Amino acid sequence: MREQIESAANKKIKLAASLAQRKHRQKEGRFVAEGVRLVEMVAASDWTIDFALFTPELEQDERGAKLLTSLETKCPVCEVSAPLFKKASGTETPQGILAVVRMNHAELDAFAESDNPFYVVLDGVQDPGNAGTIIRTADAAGADGIIFLTGCVDVFDAKTVRAAMGSLFHIPVVTNVNRAEFLDFTTKKGLKLYATALDDTAKTIYETDLTGGTAVVFGNEGNGVSEELLHASQSVYIPMYGGAESLNVNASAAIVLYEAVRQRHF
Amino acid sequence: MREQIESAANKKIKLAASLAQRKHRQKEGRFVAEGVRLVEMVAASDWTIDFALFTPELEQDERGAKLLTSLETKCPVCEVSAPLFKKASGTETPQGILAVVRMNHAELDAFAESDNPFYVVLDGVQDPGNAGTIIRTADAAGADGIIFLTGCVDVFDAKTVRAAMGSLFHIPVVTNVNRAEFLDFTTKKGLKLYATALDDTAKTIYETDLTGGTAVVFGNEGNGVSEELLHASQSVYIPMYGGAESLNVNASAAIVLYEAVRQRHF
Repeated sequence: MREQIESAANKKIKLAASLAQRKHRQKEGRFVAEGVRLVEMVAASDWTIDFALFTPELEQDERGAKLLTSLETKCPVCEVSAPLFKKASGTETPQGILAVVRMNHAELDAFAESDNPFYVVLDGVQDPGNAGTIIRTADAAGADGIIFLTGCVDVFDAKTVRAAMGSLFHIPVVTNVNRAEFLDFTTKKGLKLYATALDDTAKTIYETDLTGGTAVVFGNEGNGVSEELLHASQSVYIPMYGGAESLNVNASAAIVLYEAVRQRHF
Repeated sequence: MREQIESAANKKIKLAASLAQRKHRQKEGRFVAEGVRLVEMVAASDWTIDFALFTPELEQDERGAKLLTSLETKCPVCEVSAPLFKKASGTETPQGILAVVRMNHAELDAFAESDNPFYVVLDGVQDPGNAGTIIRTADAAGADGIIFLTGCVDVFDAKTVRAAMGSLFHIPVVTNVNRAEFLDFTTKKGLKLYATALDDTAKTIYETDLTGGTAVVFGNEGNGVSEELLHASQSVYIPMYGGAESLNVNASAAIVLYEAVRQRHF
């Protein structure tokens, strides 16, 4: 179903623009996925698209035209002028396609049963690009789920969604989990709980058993893992040899996730 | 030596502002390091600082005052008002301290001799944040050097310098290396040459010997490693299990660098 939007006062334009802010995303239960590749991915997933906005140029392109045809079977598809699109869009150089998507809220209890699950836990991660890249890497590594504890960046921030490159639509992400609830979950599931931190008891990841049911906590970019989780976890660290004082949190997550891959598959 | 700058027409202000552009960085052979931590790191290194600019607020802070004292022994230190600082600065929320630094140009032939060197090679990496994060991770992993082939993002881009978190001042980075020159270097040094790519002959990194003299090539974010280097290399890949189509290049570099760490040290 196609329609044409010509007014900046149109509700869809206003809704899409408002979703740049977390409070509006929370109130509406919706977020924006923008760009050809990302909209292709959400269209191929089981997430619900409320509507899509596109500029006429998109149809000139074979891939864009194909995407529009596929979107039409799923949701209202609205043509808008480039200046109007820019009002709705969160990017500086828009690709002329965005989708307003309903949030799927995964729950800890709804994680798929798995014999040897591996969960990635973010404890205060603040940078949306880091959070999105970690989602993408966790998906690639075959992790079973990602847990955003309370106080993390919003998983539906446009930059997080973009950096996750569609993996948000593949791997279960549970958000806003409080620490007590998370610790109950690890006990109930019998998970080994590790936190990336350097203290007297820390072992390197290469001397740590990452097979079997496992959750690994990655902390805030500046302050690391919270006290509450440090107390409940075995500390593990990534050895460093040069002059660097620390690793970027998404580099740390990639290294730990793939050490788990190596131990589990090679 | 302290001085006061009160005019936006001052040469130092104009020079610092101009260094936001690559062409001016190349012409001047200088770049900007901005923020307290980064200026501390360049001040502690053997890189030459031409001059530093700071706002009066910096001195109110103990750490800032200490940094200024240390800078004064090295270079002219110029006090400017916050609005004037903003003209010179490349950041949206300046910390009130920046240094104009002379580029050190490392050369392939000047890499330190090492029995089992490990080199990271960037072939067309375009994102400054990715390039900087790779420099930081390579430093942490104890790599012997980083080679930016022609066509990469500028290593002295403000975002690259910031993402490298001071590692630029620790690990030798050789830039603008052409492919033929690089291949000569690998032959002369007897290096094993690997490219991250998925083709019929590719082996996983876990089945690849990353000990001994080694160089690993990471390609452009969209198009991967160039044909010329693919032909000269053994392809290696990072296995993927979930729905993700690819990994971010800095996540890939972290995974490969630390598989080399594991093979070499554990």
